[in-house]
Amino acid sequence: MAAAPAFAIGVDFGTNSVRAVVVDCADGRTLGTSVFDYPGGEHGVITDPREPHLARQHPGDWLAGLRGSVRGALEEAARTGGFSRERVVGIGVDTTGSTPLPVDAACRPLALDPRWKANPAAQAWLWKDHTGAEEAADITETARRYAPQYVAPIGGTYSSEWFWSKIWHCLRVAPDVFAAAASWVELADYVPAVLAGVGRPQDVVRCVCAAGHKAMYSEAWGGLPDEAFLARLDPQLATLRARLFARAFAADRPAGRLCAEWASALGLPEGVTVAMGGFDAHYGAVGAGVRPGTFVKIIGTSTCDIAIAPATARLGDIPGICGIVNGSVMPGCYGIEAGQSAVGDLLQWWVGEVCEGDESLHARLSSEAARLRPGESGLLALDWNNGNRTILVDPRLTGLLVGQTLHSTREEVYRALIEATAFGARAIVERLVECGVPIERVVCCGGIAEKNDLFMQIYADVLGRPMRIAGSSQTPALGAAVSATVAAGRYPGFEAAQQAMTSLKEKRFMPEAKARAVYDELYGMYRELHDVFGGVRASHSDLPTLMKRLLGLRERVGRSAS
Amino acid sequence: MAAAPAFAIGVDFGTNSVRAVVVDCADGRTLGTSVFDYPGGEHGVITDPREPHLARQHPGDWLAGLRGSVRGALEEAARTGGFSRERVVGIGVDTTGSTPLPVDAACRPLALDPRWKANPAAQAWLWKDHTGAEEAADITETARRYAPQYVAPIGGTYSSEWFWSKIWHCLRVAPDVFAAAASWVELADYVPAVLAGVGRPQDVVRCVCAAGHKAMYSEAWGGLPDEAFLARLDPQLATLRARLFARAFAADRPAGRLCAEWASALGLPEGVTVAMGGFDAHYGAVGAGVRPGTFVKIIGTSTCDIAIAPATARLGDIPGICGIVNGSVMPGCYGIEAGQSAVGDLLQWWVGEVCEGDESLHARLSSEAARLRPGESGLLALDWNNGNRTILVDPRLTGLLVGQTLHSTREEVYRALIEATAFGARAIVERLVECGVPIERVVCCGGIAEKNDLFMQIYADVLGRPMRIAGSSQTPALGAAVSATVAAGRYPGFEAAQQAMTSLKEKRFMPEAKARAVYDELYGMYRELHDVFGGVRASHSDLPTLMKRLLGLRERVGRSAS
Repeated sequence: MAAAPAFAIGVDFGTNSVRAVVVDCADGRTLGTSVFDYPGGEHGVITDPREPHLARQHPGDWLAGLRGSVRGALEEAARTGGFSRERVVGIGVDTTGSTPLPVDAACRPLALDPRWKANPAAQAWLWKDHTGAEEAADITETARRYAPQYVAPIGGTYSSEWFWSKIWHCLRVAPDVFAAAASWVELADYVPAVLAGVGRPQDVVRCVCAAGHKAMYSEAWGGLPDEAFLARLDPQLATLRARLFARAFAADRPAGRLCAEWASALGLPEGVTVAMGGFDAHYGAVGAGVRPGTFVKIIGTSTCDIAIAPATARLGDIPGICGIVNGSVMPGCYGIEAGQSAVGDLLQWWVGEVCEGDESLHARLSSEAARLRPGESGLLALDWNNGNRTILVDPRLTGLLVGQTLHSTREEVYRALIEATAFGARAIVERLVECGVPIERVVCCGGIAEKNDLFMQIYADVLGRPMRIAGSSQTPALGAAVSATVAAGRYPGFEAAQQAMTSLKEKRFMPEAKARAVYDELYGMYRELHDVFGGVRASHSDLPTLMKRLLGLRERVGRSAS
Repeated sequence: MAAAPAFAIGVDFGTNSVRAVVVDCADGRTLGTSVFDYPGGEHGVITDPREPHLARQHPGDWLAGLRGSVRGALEEAARTGGFSRERVVGIGVDTTGSTPLPVDAACRPLALDPRWKANPAAQAWLWKDHTGAEEAADITETARRYAPQYVAPIGGTYSSEWFWSKIWHCLRVAPDVFAAAASWVELADYVPAVLAGVGRPQDVVRCVCAAGHKAMYSEAWGGLPDEAFLARLDPQLATLRARLFARAFAADRPAGRLCAEWASALGLPEGVTVAMGGFDAHYGAVGAGVRPGTFVKIIGTSTCDIAIAPATARLGDIPGICGIVNGSVMPGCYGIEAGQSAVGDLLQWWVGEVCEGDESLHARLSSEAARLRPGESGLLALDWNNGNRTILVDPRLTGLLVGQTLHSTREEVYRALIEATAFGARAIVERLVECGVPIERVVCCGGIAEKNDLFMQIYADVLGRPMRIAGSSQTPALGAAVSATVAAGRYPGFEAAQQAMTSLKEKRFMPEAKARAVYDELYGMYRELHDVFGGVRASHSDLPTLMKRLLGLRERVGRSAS
């Protein structure tokens, strides 16, 4: 890279706040950070007590958050020796998604127009809005019947959280808003367009990350689903198609250059490179150093898992994997997205709901559970309290716990629940590996990975792979900054930029042979339950002995220790 | 019955105490009660930290307890108008079992001899002593191979809690005690023999209740197992056979008459009728008004279930039912014994171990769970945390809970555990009915039945039968007193005596049609899990949809209410 210092900005649009970081392009070091919390009791989320599935956001909050967070981060950086605003070369954005927004012909959000300001359908439809559940089911049904190719790369089921479900639901419940919208733009595309001063929806540069994972876009069938298919849903969706976009792009090009208005608003030079937007999980994976062979797990209440594979690998569809999109995480690679519906939430259910404990009980149960050996409790759980996102793609599954005695303790169950999520992760990893995606190591992001050593060691033993932790606690914003640095031409590509700008923590968790052998056995039993209760197979002739095998394992493990 | 007032005494030998009651033979009314707690930190139970399965009792405690409790009850009765010691016509005894005791040629417990006093093998072997587990397995194996008839009426498996397992274990670990024993006597036979002043083991009148249920005694094969069979276990057991007993009797005759020594010790007339001894559960059923068509459940940490059927019914063996003995509960009827390994213990596990709550949490969870409709939680459990006594006869089974979401609450699980025990009870009732034992109503004894209305209503709805509660809280002692009254000739038989002396509480729990329909559906799913995980069948093709059916039921139940 060039010797002259250069800086990049990453802006991470979360559900309740915006976080900006200013980093050094040479080594990814953070010089300034600032968080802007959305105002209001719901922290920027518009809800409706009569419609619990509704979750919207006012786009004015985004603009205030963009200005506030970037200015704050720049001010902090300015107090650092050697920083200069003039040397900021790029700005990148990551966001939640699918979060589509209706805009007018000037690419202005309808919600900023006084006529539509109070209309909930004119706001941004947040990723977690599930009001389009019926529409999602109809899209799935129609696609399975008439165009199975559209849902094959997303696991066969279209979600209520996604682009078309939301827009169609708007058409049904608020046809006036639908009619007034010149186009719809994803949050991930909208913010870069704002920064670049785009004045017409047709000039918004759309990222393949949102288009490919959420809008059934693929170059294989010429872009978005064709008009004939959309007309089967509703003729008005077919006419909308031409007002959306013809092409979507990987992050191998900029989205634009910083316009005068926002250069002034942020206190940056006009013309700074604006990177392609992307989803938080995808740029988070970039910031965690994703590369072929690395499986990134962003572990929170649920997990989002990201892997990439060279585009030359010519992967087919992977059954049960919810998205494989060329260029979605990084140019030149397939981006592969998977996930588990409940991880932190599952442990929190046990601690908060069942044990009625607070945060400190997590620490107590973890420490007590760490004294148990694998197999010692005789317990085995399925991690489906919130359904199964990958590899069964079935929200209508529930939890299961087996092996309880009158002496089973709350910490034994806690450990069994951690193990269950690790077995769920193994099912995903094994499916990817079977289908040609190499996975040699796992890099985790998120508080649980940073704080809970037991969790990490169990995963290492269950997955049989080294477990690492991303060096940054803000990998999405860092990944957006990496993308901006690449777009500004400071590195030849993502790989070189990641090499310089991202890191892993020193601490690592390696599989232990003895624990791994026990977990291989337990995973076999997990799969018996998984396959039967998950509907993969009608029966498993070993189930009638499962309880006895768990007891037998417990006794063997107990004996080998004494 | 005769017009002159008459009174009977019932003495109930529990594990930690002896309770005596004095009742009016006319109506069963209690005139006096007294409880004698065994001394010592373990309340009369001798344990060994190196051998957790050991549980013994010093027979001297029994004699002190007999004297203390009966004298106390008589003193209380004496303060009642109309009572007179001279009008006590009978004394009956119920005890734990199988609790065998080695005695010398004068029918004196070895443990009362200074030479053996400190030897744990010379004490009484309490019902819950499991040191004979290996011997039990060997007996089962040998019987299955050479004499399956011996274990057919007890469900096919001989228990470590029973007579021969304990005596054989004594022979192996304390051959000197075995050699010194002239005979072995069950607690249920020993106390009546003491009261009657019996001086030789061969004069002890043995009850068919202990002999038939615990010692493989049956008139069908000439009494105890034959010498050839016992010799296969150990030649010394074969030679012991002749020193035990040739016949055992139902309670259609007295065990003897009160001897001078004990008449004086208790302050009663010499010659009072001493009834045949019996097990607590059996006399408890008598005191609860058991009759053909009534299923008595003695609900504590576990349950003991008793039914009777006329001897004319010519019942065959009932698979999985642990004991069918002619005359064991009442003369002229088959006594049928079943049980569930954990009921109160299962709820206490949830409240005490998992929720870390005290007694008050049972009340709180019951009251919260009572607000739920059947099926509303979407949860389903198996009640096997302590194995399954009936109808699977398999201690190596464990608990299972399915249907958890991230919103499942502790009270929902609490209710699911109650329901699981009710489903377990239904499996027993259905098995009995299939095999020709009529069951029209259920009568419960024990604190849970008296205190927990939710528990009783769930059982009524699951079993589809009226649930009643025994009028007396001391049904075993009352049943022993009923037996004494019958033995003293005050009634023509047990039925007439029960009619006069036992009662049910007014409060009754009737099945509700709507709840019953939901529970029929849930019980079907319980049986799918029961049959597969219990090893009854290799697979069940409906399991793959079980979680969805539970969710569907939950939604239907929710809709029907709103």
